[in-house]
Amino acid sequence: MKAVVPFKVVNAKSRLATLLTVEERARLARLMLDDIIGVLRQCGLNVVLLATAPFTYDAEVVVSDKDLNSALNELLKAEVEPVMIVMADVPLITPDNVRDILKSPSDLVIAPGRGGGTNIQYIKDPQRYHVDYYGASFLDHLRIAEDNGLTVEVFDSFNASSDIDEAQDLVELYIHGRGRAAEYLRSIAALDISKGRVRVVKD
Amino acid sequence: MKAVVPFKVVNAKSRLATLLTVEERARLARLMLDDIIGVLRQCGLNVVLLATAPFTYDAEVVVSDKDLNSALNELLKAEVEPVMIVMADVPLITPDNVRDILKSPSDLVIAPGRGGGTNIQYIKDPQRYHVDYYGASFLDHLRIAEDNGLTVEVFDSFNASSDIDEAQDLVELYIHGRGRAAEYLRSIAALDISKGRVRVVKD
Repeated sequence: MKAVVPFKVVNAKSRLATLLTVEERARLARLMLDDIIGVLRQCGLNVVLLATAPFTYDAEVVVSDKDLNSALNELLKAEVEPVMIVMADVPLITPDNVRDILKSPSDLVIAPGRGGGTNIQYIKDPQRYHVDYYGASFLDHLRIAEDNGLTVEVFDSFNASSDIDEAQDLVELYIHGRGRAAEYLRSIAALDISKGRVRVVKD
Repeated sequence: MKAVVPFKVVNAKSRLATLLTVEERARLARLMLDDIIGVLRQCGLNVVLLATAPFTYDAEVVVSDKDLNSALNELLKAEVEPVMIVMADVPLITPDNVRDILKSPSDLVIAPGRGGGTNIQYIKDPQRYHVDYYGASFLDHLRIAEDNGLTVEVFDSFNASSDIDEAQDLVELYIHGRGRAAEYLRSIAALDISKGRVRVVKD
C-alpha cells in the first residue's frame, strides 16, 4: 500500500526562520522526512515522495509543480487501492501510530494537526474522496467525507497532531522526539524554561 | 478512586484576556471544569476539586492557598490508593481517554500537554511519587518517576494534550470540542481562516 508524503524541496519550513538558518531548516526538514519515511517503511508501506521540484531520494519520487491539493488529487484519482497521506513535518509518529491507523475499519482515518490542520489521512477508496488542505482543513475533510458518505475515525494522537511548523512547535520535537531530527535539534539548540511557556532557543 | 482537579477560582485563565472578557473567561473556565468532571464521573471516579479559594461546587472541595505543587503533594502524601490528577483546562478529553488511562499496567501514566507541560497523571502509588508542575514539567515528572523506580506510560492523545491556555489554543476547543464549553465558545466567537493559521476571533 502506498504512503504519499508531500515534500517541499526548496525553502522548506520557512516559518522556522525566526530561529533557524536556511541550512539548519533544510537539514531538519530532511531528517524529519527520513524519520517519517523510516516509520512508514517499518509498517510495510511503499513510500511515494510528492516533491515540489526534482529531488534525489531512495524512494519513488513524483515531481509536481502544481499546488498541494491539485497534485494530491491527481494522484488519488489514479489510485484504486487505499492510500495514506502523511505530512512531512510530523516527526513524532511511531510505528504503533501507523499500525493503529491501518487497523481502523472506517472509510477515512484522519489525524488532526494543531490549529485545525490535517496531518495524516488514510483513505480506503481514493476514488470516493479528494483532499482540501490549507485553512481549517480538518473541518473541510470531515465535510468531504460526509458528502461522499464515508465513515470517519478521528485519530486521537499527540504524536500525530504535533506538526513542526513554527519555532514554538520545536519544543515538542525537542522534548518528545526519538529520531534523528530530534537528535539534530538538540545538538544545535537548547530548552529555555526561564519564563512562561517553554521555548527552544539557540545557544 | 479519586480524581483530583486543581481549579483556580479567581481570575482563571487570565492568559485568554487577549480575546475574552473576565466574565467570559470565568464562564468558559467553569464550563470546561463541568465538562471534565462530567467525563471523570462517567468513568466512576470520585472527583476532588482542589480550589485556590472557597468555591461552591457539587463535589468534594479542598481549599488550599498553597502553590499548586505543595497543595497537590500534601494531598498525595495522605493517599494510599491510586490517584488521577487532571488539569481543569483539557476539555477535549473523553470517557474513552480516561478508561484507556485507567487500563494501563504502568506505575505512572502521564499525558503530555503542549510545550512540555503535563495535563493528566495517573499515579498508582502516591506514596512513591510527587509532582512538580511549571516549566517543562513533563521532563521533571519522567525524572521523578525514574528516581522512584516507577514504570511509565506516556499517554499519546491529542485530546489530552490540548490544554486551553492562550487565545490560539481556543481553536482546538472551537473545532474539536463536543461539550458545553465548546458550545459556549462557538456562541461568543468565530473562526477566522483568512490568513495563515486558523484563529478564534470575536465578532
